[in-house]
Amino acid sequence: MPSLPACRFNHAALVGKYHARGIKPVLEDVAQILVRAGLDVSIEQETAQSTGMADYPSLAMREIGRQCDVVVVVGGDGTMLATARELAPFDVPLIGINQGRLGFITDIQLKDMATALPLILGGQYAEEKRVLLAGAVLRPTREGEFDTIYEGFAINEIVVSRGAVASMVEVRAEVDGLFVANYRADGLIVSTPTGSTAYAMSAGGPILHPDLGGWTIVPIASHTLSNRPIVLPDTGTVTIEIVAARDASMNFDMQSLASLLPGDRVTVRRSPHRVRFLHPEGWNYYATLRRKLRWNEGVS
Amino acid sequence: MPSLPACRFNHAALVGKYHARGIKPVLEDVAQILVRAGLDVSIEQETAQSTGMADYPSLAMREIGRQCDVVVVVGGDGTMLATARELAPFDVPLIGINQGRLGFITDIQLKDMATALPLILGGQYAEEKRVLLAGAVLRPTREGEFDTIYEGFAINEIVVSRGAVASMVEVRAEVDGLFVANYRADGLIVSTPTGSTAYAMSAGGPILHPDLGGWTIVPIASHTLSNRPIVLPDTGTVTIEIVAARDASMNFDMQSLASLLPGDRVTVRRSPHRVRFLHPEGWNYYATLRRKLRWNEGVS
Amino acid sequence: MPSLPACRFNHAALVGKYHARGIKPVLEDVAQILVRAGLDVSIEQETAQSTGMADYPSLAMREIGRQCDVVVVVGGDGTMLATARELAPFDVPLIGINQGRLGFITDIQLKDMATALPLILGGQYAEEKRVLLAGAVLRPTREGEFDTIYEGFAINEIVVSRGAVASMVEVRAEVDGLFVANYRADGLIVSTPTGSTAYAMSAGGPILHPDLGGWTIVPIASHTLSNRPIVLPDTGTVTIEIVAARDASMNFDMQSLASLLPGDRVTVRRSPHRVRFLHPEGWNYYATLRRKLRWNEGVS
Amino acid sequence: MPSLPACRFNHAALVGKYHARGIKPVLEDVAQILVRAGLDVSIEQETAQSTGMADYPSLAMREIGRQCDVVVVVGGDGTMLATARELAPFDVPLIGINQGRLGFITDIQLKDMATALPLILGGQYAEEKRVLLAGAVLRPTREGEFDTIYEGFAINEIVVSRGAVASMVEVRAEVDGLFVANYRADGLIVSTPTGSTAYAMSAGGPILHPDLGGWTIVPIASHTLSNRPIVLPDTGTVTIEIVAARDASMNFDMQSLASLLPGDRVTVRRSPHRVRFLHPEGWNYYATLRRKLRWNEGVS
Repeated sequence: MPSLPACRFNHAALVGKYHARGIKPVLEDVAQILVRAGLDVSIEQETAQSTGMADYPSLAMREIGRQCDVVVVVGGDGTMLATARELAPFDVPLIGINQGRLGFITDIQLKDMATALPLILGGQYAEEKRVLLAGAVLRPTREGEFDTIYEGFAINEIVVSRGAVASMVEVRAEVDGLFVANYRADGLIVSTPTGSTAYAMSAGGPILHPDLGGWTIVPIASHTLSNRPIVLPDTGTVTIEIVAARDASMNFDMQSLASLLPGDRVTVRRSPHRVRFLHPEGWNYYATLRRKLRWNEGVS
Repeated sequence: MPSLPACRFNHAALVGKYHARGIKPVLEDVAQILVRAGLDVSIEQETAQSTGMADYPSLAMREIGRQCDVVVVVGGDGTMLATARELAPFDVPLIGINQGRLGFITDIQLKDMATALPLILGGQYAEEKRVLLAGAVLRPTREGEFDTIYEGFAINEIVVSRGAVASMVEVRAEVDGLFVANYRADGLIVSTPTGSTAYAMSAGGPILHPDLGGWTIVPIASHTLSNRPIVLPDTGTVTIEIVAARDASMNFDMQSLASLLPGDRVTVRRSPHRVRFLHPEGWNYYATLRRKLRWNEGVS
Repeated sequence: MPSLPACRFNHAALVGKYHARGIKPVLEDVAQILVRAGLDVSIEQETAQSTGMADYPSLAMREIGRQCDVVVVVGGDGTMLATARELAPFDVPLIGINQGRLGFITDIQLKDMATALPLILGGQYAEEKRVLLAGAVLRPTREGEFDTIYEGFAINEIVVSRGAVASMVEVRAEVDGLFVANYRADGLIVSTPTGSTAYAMSAGGPILHPDLGGWTIVPIASHTLSNRPIVLPDTGTVTIEIVAARDASMNFDMQSLASLLPGDRVTVRRSPHRVRFLHPEGWNYYATLRRKLRWNEGVS
Repeated sequence: MPSLPACRFNHAALVGKYHARGIKPVLEDVAQILVRAGLDVSIEQETAQSTGMADYPSLAMREIGRQCDVVVVVGGDGTMLATARELAPFDVPLIGINQGRLGFITDIQLKDMATALPLILGGQYAEEKRVLLAGAVLRPTREGEFDTIYEGFAINEIVVSRGAVASMVEVRAEVDGLFVANYRADGLIVSTPTGSTAYAMSAGGPILHPDLGGWTIVPIASHTLSNRPIVLPDTGTVTIEIVAARDASMNFDMQSLASLLPGDRVTVRRSPHRVRFLHPEGWNYYATLRRKLRWNEGVS
């Protein structure tokens, strides 16, 4: 057995998929690998509580962001997105281990982790930075100004959509103050390249390469058939105003957040932060696309 | 001026678009045309109330269905759909007069009605029968049976969809007891030919000719890209079971109706009733498509 | 081993995928199964020549159509389509054995045939009839009439499309003499339900259930975005006239056939013949869709 | 009448839509406006020949590129594309006057030119630079190397597609040497933002903003439904290899150019040149989209 390269990191945090059955033994295996690699190991607070793991110190997400220099996430793409959103301000790199089928961004399988993790920790990784969206909801005041009533990050997408009782929303989209279009649709998605293979794709959007420097506005079930997805430079500000809706809401990465009222404006900017993913060396964006989208198999 | 053919009908009802501004003078003009054609004229109850028209007897929708042998609807496609749904059991023919842009099914313009209406009433019409959907919601009881908790008609479509807080629904579709597919999507539409140019088209569905004898199941923003719209004979029963959803609802012709729970089943059958539309002679389905979908104009 | 039911057929023909490697031993196995089931067995002429199988009489396709009461096709959907087109006038049922991945219409795998074939031959089958298109090319004469310059059958689709040097064609579609639309596009597909999961699906068409009694007109890369696929009753005649094209051609089931000139008209009708497929008992259209379109697997 | 600003240019060339009826008087009007603005005016050689305009010196395209500092193109988007491709190496700005409906890039109407042209020539313009594609066809030699058998520019798109007798092509796409996908399709489009509202849109591609710094690879009628359009940074090299095709060809901006053989490779890079369009001040990309795609009008 060849000797492994010295570990590049000092303090790892471990985050697990909440409520996943059988997660504890997996997390313990991962923790052991990290310890053997010479790392201090902490467990994310809620992960520690839900699994009862008491052998390692537990840290809240903010503390992880401040104290740890690498985070290992065990779960699927959803767990990774939630973790990355919370750690976004801290610039700490993330490694994803997937219990089930490989995801778009969690690309180490359980069975391979004993081999793959030490190599990554020793510096043999491909680092990839993904853009984050910074979204806000502005509500008009009686004085004709706007209050910021919500702010948050999204790694995949920010969605404005109809609620349960409404048949559609009408929204007005602007980019850097320039009117783009009025959409009558089930909703409107602003998606990053990372999100372009998630909900935006279901709604008919294109695949965006992570290095593109762009994002896409994709209407959901647009009334006007020529309202096709638009891909824009990610340097501007997208503003979506609720023109008419009996019932509208918005969400960040599919976490439903806020009811919107006519006159509300949702703004979307590129965050100054980026998410850092560490992949096994040789990681390849196109190979992930081919595998996840089954491009080798055809329909017949 | 040529003499008009004798009127084929005896008693006309007049239905107006509720709350539409300026509707009263238009309705009075239509009523005059009907009277001149030799018809007894009644006004639909709510139309009479909201406009204050008192010169004609008013009738509730059910009474119209029982007593009148022709109904003139002034408004857009939405008013026509609502009227046709209520009158569905009565087999009474409908004539649509559109105040604004011509619709798919309301195809006489205000400015043409003085000429067009008498001709139609004299028998110079193209009659077109459109299929109706009969939908029901079945809820499982503790005894393992199902209670029918809702029943209704739809002329366009029956939709099962996610609510405001859910990111998607998972539904299981069957046709005549045969499993078709599990859909993870924003929702699922069962659309008639009449509805195929409405919401189903926004969601990516095909145009169905009214004489087809088929309907289409169209997923909305399906997670699985190969879950394409399916067109089926309309002789069977479609069953949609809610497999998983934090929040789901259903609607008939976009009128939101019922919250659904996991385990609920929505059944869709062709109604024994049909809606009868009377169009001006020479009416042509394809001409309506071309006009409404702007096929003559291209994108450049 | 239970005794098999008595064979319902008397004389089987065997058709193989031309040029397929290793086809001879497979065909010999199939022939043995047929003989053991009590059938007279003939080999299709070209199959006999290309494999060198000399133990059974060989018959041309037309003779097969006249003399045999069942045909076993070994190959993929393509071989089945070609065979079914040639045998269309003869009403003889076909059984498909697939050497590779199961197809939409060839649904017995090589490894299962020893069990499945005798059951089918004994009458335990699900018979399915599929509609055939009868197409013709009419060319205007100097006298203002039309000569029929080509006629043929299609099981999947008839396509009119641009040639190599043209960027698009402009065609005018009519149904039963009613103008439908002028299409500026790469081409236009008229597809049966059988073809709806083939080329028409790649071009954006819906899935049509085989019992629908309808077909679909699907434009390929239409210039006008609202030129969506239309599904029509299959009782009419579709006429496609070449309005403008530097270079256009048509094909039946992707077998390229004829160059077309401006003014040429392609007519498509439902053939009075139907193709009869015999599937193993319990065969299920939706199960085939789910398997071929990978509906159980999603994209992530 | 206010005095106009001094002209910023010295020598204008005039290019007309070849063979367009009635072009001569229009060109003469434009020439007069240019002369009155103080410019030397030359007529493009073929335009001069086809119209018989002899009052101005005529110049070949290359000479225009070398001698003129502004070019006025009268015609539609097609004439503009052809002119811009030929003048690509010369960095000379272009102004488009459209005889018919406004185009995406020719945005001065005939009736407005007397007002609009002098303002632009006086410096009141919005300059917009559009990316050019540089394409090449490489053919393998017997020695295992590649000969460049064709090179050219495209402003809209480079397309590799099936020919007349082939049902599809199979191509292998790479980006910077990384394998992306094997496509079995009617063809593959590499489109600039300028081309994204042309053929790529008909094939299902997204709209790309001209400032994006990206282009899109769009398959035409792909066999595999998950082969969605991809948007990539425009800094790399796309290579498309013909894997299998009975008959394939490629084109630049829909001008059909070359037959391709299996093994041939088409490479696409961003050209170091850019096309410069001068629009009336206040020109707005989104307003053009809304007008051309009829976003204000809906389908009903």
